[in-house]
Amino acid sequence: MTTVITLDEGLRARKKRETRHALHRAAIELLHEGDFCDVTIEAIAARAGVSPRTFFNYFPAKEAALSGTDPDMVARAREFMLARPATEDTVTAVRGATLERLRELVVDAELWQMRRAVSQRHPEFAAGLVGANALAEKAIAQAACERLGADPLTDVTPMATAYAALGAIRAALQQHVSAGFAGSIEERIDAALAAVGLWPRP
Amino acid sequence: MTTVITLDEGLRARKKRETRHALHRAAIELLHEGDFCDVTIEAIAARAGVSPRTFFNYFPAKEAALSGTDPDMVARAREFMLARPATEDTVTAVRGATLERLRELVVDAELWQMRRAVSQRHPEFAAGLVGANALAEKAIAQAACERLGADPLTDVTPMATAYAALGAIRAALQQHVSAGFAGSIEERIDAALAAVGLWPRP
Repeated sequence: MTTVITLDEGLRARKKRETRHALHRAAIELLHEGDFCDVTIEAIAARAGVSPRTFFNYFPAKEAALSGTDPDMVARAREFMLARPATEDTVTAVRGATLERLRELVVDAELWQMRRAVSQRHPEFAAGLVGANALAEKAIAQAACERLGADPLTDVTPMATAYAALGAIRAALQQHVSAGFAGSIEERIDAALAAVGLWPRP
Repeated sequence: MTTVITLDEGLRARKKRETRHALHRAAIELLHEGDFCDVTIEAIAARAGVSPRTFFNYFPAKEAALSGTDPDMVARAREFMLARPATEDTVTAVRGATLERLRELVVDAELWQMRRAVSQRHPEFAAGLVGANALAEKAIAQAACERLGADPLTDVTPMATAYAALGAIRAALQQHVSAGFAGSIEERIDAALAAVGLWPRP
């Protein structure tokens, strides 16, 4: 019985992620094809095959659908970080939480390319497009501090370490996208962390 | 004669930065006080004391004024990085370029606090608000690769190092804001870089 409930929860969570992905993709497609005025909530919902009412279960406004800012995913990034074993140092925990996050992401190479094109054609939305990831990074860095019970005002180490590790990971992810998603993302992450002396841990 | 021209350029550049800052601040104030519909280009321009026509010399749209995304500042971040001596390693260059950038920023503690409040009250704009900085970081990381003539597809080290250093610096800047801008920002940056083993350089 517990297994069934867990399975249902898993399926529901996956369905939710897929709908959110469809809405974000629809918003990017509409901006890719036209201008911001064409990116209405009605048009986004129609293209994603849901009602405008459903749209608001996922995003508070069209700006958020465009950037893909998902308050749940930001909260989820934080949860993944706080769920790491207390014995793990910050870098190991950030690496582990990131791999958990990547497992949940719907990989969509075409969307990444479209997002890049939209950023270049519409500089006014570029900040929102790169900012969604920055919000997740911020949540992870704050959680890094929290799990150690550190005061960020007097101890900069946990946040600096988390942001540094996330920085190396960002380089690995950008490389992975540029390489057309070829090869192992985990190997790229470990190589990038090693390049800055943060991996492997002693 | 050359001196006079340089002085004029300096004054004009400073005036431009101040006007851009006033427009960005006006946009944040309007969203802080009301909702997104109140943030019109006319209202932003009026509050900043310029014409709507002048607005478009600084930002392509109200979204950009809100996030503060300044294509010039992104280009400027790149220039600062490319202007570093070829003898400097990536971390030293990123640190130097950041200190140059900070020297140009109009420090406005109240604006930082308002931006934080706006992010919390309007999650749909949070990505844009943190994204402006992410764009500058991206430009610096790409320039780090460029100045070494490295191919980012095969050599992850320059970008990983730049992003890691920028990550530690971000932690230092967030600490500085939380501390109400008290103390030396340069000392905070060096402490954060040291905390992740990136400073001082051998």
